[in-house]
Amino acid sequence: MSLDLTETTITEAVQKTFTAAHDDRMREVFCSLVQHLHDFTREVQLTGDEWFTAVDFLERVGQMSTPTRQEFVLLSDILGLSVLVDQIAHQDGSTSTTDSTLLGPFFVEGRPKAENGSDISGGVDGTPLFCHGSVVDSAGNPVAGAHVDTWHSDGDGFYDVQQAQKLHDKLAMRALLTTDERGRFWYRSIAPRYYPVPTDGPCGEILRAADRSAMRPEHIHFWFQAEGYEPLITMLFRYGDPYLETDAVFGAKRSLVVEFVDHQAGETAPDGTTMTEPFQTVEWTFTLERKDQGDVTDRAEQT
Amino acid sequence: MSLDLTETTITEAVQKTFTAAHDDRMREVFCSLVQHLHDFTREVQLTGDEWFTAVDFLERVGQMSTPTRQEFVLLSDILGLSVLVDQIAHQDGSTSTTDSTLLGPFFVEGRPKAENGSDISGGVDGTPLFCHGSVVDSAGNPVAGAHVDTWHSDGDGFYDVQQAQKLHDKLAMRALLTTDERGRFWYRSIAPRYYPVPTDGPCGEILRAADRSAMRPEHIHFWFQAEGYEPLITMLFRYGDPYLETDAVFGAKRSLVVEFVDHQAGETAPDGTTMTEPFQTVEWTFTLERKDQGDVTDRAEQT
Repeated sequence: MSLDLTETTITEAVQKTFTAAHDDRMREVFCSLVQHLHDFTREVQLTGDEWFTAVDFLERVGQMSTPTRQEFVLLSDILGLSVLVDQIAHQDGSTSTTDSTLLGPFFVEGRPKAENGSDISGGVDGTPLFCHGSVVDSAGNPVAGAHVDTWHSDGDGFYDVQQAQKLHDKLAMRALLTTDERGRFWYRSIAPRYYPVPTDGPCGEILRAADRSAMRPEHIHFWFQAEGYEPLITMLFRYGDPYLETDAVFGAKRSLVVEFVDHQAGETAPDGTTMTEPFQTVEWTFTLERKDQGDVTDRAEQT
Repeated sequence: MSLDLTETTITEAVQKTFTAAHDDRMREVFCSLVQHLHDFTREVQLTGDEWFTAVDFLERVGQMSTPTRQEFVLLSDILGLSVLVDQIAHQDGSTSTTDSTLLGPFFVEGRPKAENGSDISGGVDGTPLFCHGSVVDSAGNPVAGAHVDTWHSDGDGFYDVQQAQKLHDKLAMRALLTTDERGRFWYRSIAPRYYPVPTDGPCGEILRAADRSAMRPEHIHFWFQAEGYEPLITMLFRYGDPYLETDAVFGAKRSLVVEFVDHQAGETAPDGTTMTEPFQTVEWTFTLERKDQGDVTDRAEQT
C-alpha cells in the first residue's frame, strides 16, 4: 500500500490485503468482489450522496431481516442473484432430474413434521388442495425416506409468517413429510394464490422506483433431502397463471409449470372423501440426482 | 422475460425490469450493479453455501449498525469503497485545495457546539493537545463563519461512542466549531492514538480471516461546511505514525500527514497557559473549493 492511492490503484491495493488469507477460496472470492464492486463504482461514477443512500438502504434491509422476514434474501431475489446462484449450481444441464429454483424468503426452520395424508393447512380457510408427489432417482427407482419440506401461501397469497397476528404465531401451510417405501408423499392443504413479494420494506422502494411488478405466480415450494442424493430446492407453478412470465424474482421455469386440476363439488378426492365443495389436485414426480452422478463437487466442501 | 432463463440470459432479463424506472440515473446505476454483481457471481461460480454465508453476513452487519456503530460504513471502508467514492468525487486532481478522505464510522449527528478556545475533551484524561486551524479559499482568503466538525479518539484509540458506558453516554472529543472573521478555529482537547477499527462485529471476521491489520494511523477528523464552498471531509494524520502505510481503511494520504509537535512540561501553550505536563500542538491550513470552481457538478442534484 502507499500514501498515494488513486481511483485506479486503490483496487489492487485492497486486493493485496487479501493475499495473506488463510483460505484460497476466500482470497479468490474477495479479490473478484473488490474488482467488480470497484469497477461498478467507477463505471457509474457513484456520488457521495448515492453512497450514503446505499449504506442507509442496506442498513434498513438488515434491520428488517428476521428469521421470518428475510429482506436480504428478497433483495438477492429481485436482483436475480438467487436464481443465478441456483443456475450455476445446476449448470451441468442435466435433463434427467427435476429443475431447481430459488428458496425464497419464506422457508422457516421450525416447521412442523406431518404424516402423509394429513391436513397441513393449519385450519386456514381456502379451496381444498390435494398434493401427491413421487420422489425417484434418474432411473425411476423410488427414493424412500426422503425428507420433503413443502410450504405455500393461502388463497389470498399470504404465508403464515405474514399473518402471524391472525394465526397467533402458529405455523400453517407448511410441513416436513417423509416419503414412504414407494417414494410417495401426499398431503391435504388449501390452494395457494399468486401474490406480491413484500413491498413494505426497502426492497419495495426499488420495485416502485423501477415501476416493476411485485407479483409472483402461484406456486408450491418443495425442498427434498435424502441420503445419497443432492438436495433439491424447487417449486411447482400453476399452468395458466397470469404472472408466469413476469415473476418478480425470476424463479418460474417452463419445466416446473404443472396442471393444478380443478374439481367440482360432488367429486371424490384422492383420499376417498366425497367433497362437498370444489377442490384442486396436483400430482408430480420429482427426480433427484445421486451424489455420485455427474459433477457434484461442492467448492465449499473442498476448502 | 421468459420461462427459459439461463446463467447468461438472466442478467439481461433483470436489467430489462429496470427500463421503466422513472429516474434515468436509477436505471443506469441498477443496470450496472446487476451486470457487475452477476459477473462476479459467475466469475467465482458462487456456491449456494457461500450465498447463504453472504446473506447471513449482511444481515448481521445491518443488525449491528446503529447511529454510533456504523458497521456498513466500516464494511465499505475495509473494502476500499469509501475511499474510492471520495476519489471519484475529487478526480479533478486539484492541488490547490486540501485533499479529502473518507468520513469513517464515528461521526455523530448530535455532537455539541463549542466556542473557539474551549476544551472539547469532555474531561477525558490524556496528553493535552492544542489544535489551531485556518480555513481559506484557493486564493488564500479567509473563510469566515465556516462550520468545522472535528472528532478524534482518546489516548487509547477509543472514540466516545465506544466508551458510552464509561462516559455515561456523554459525547466527548468532538465538537462543531465556527471559524472567526479571519477564518481561524482553535480548541484544546487530548492527543488521539492509532487504533484498530472495531473487530467484534462481522467486519472483524473478514479482517481475521484475511490476516489483515485492523490498525488505523493516529488522526483527527474534520468536516468543513461553508456557504459557497464545496464541503470538505478530511483528516490530519500524525507524521511518523507506524501505521501510515497500512491504514486498514486506505484513508491515509501523503498530503494530509502533518507534524503533531511534542512540547515539554514548563513550555507555554498557545492559549498562554504555562503547562505543568507535556503537551502537543498541531496547526494546519485547510483550503476549500468554491462551488463555482472547476467541475463541481453533483449528479445527485441533476436528477
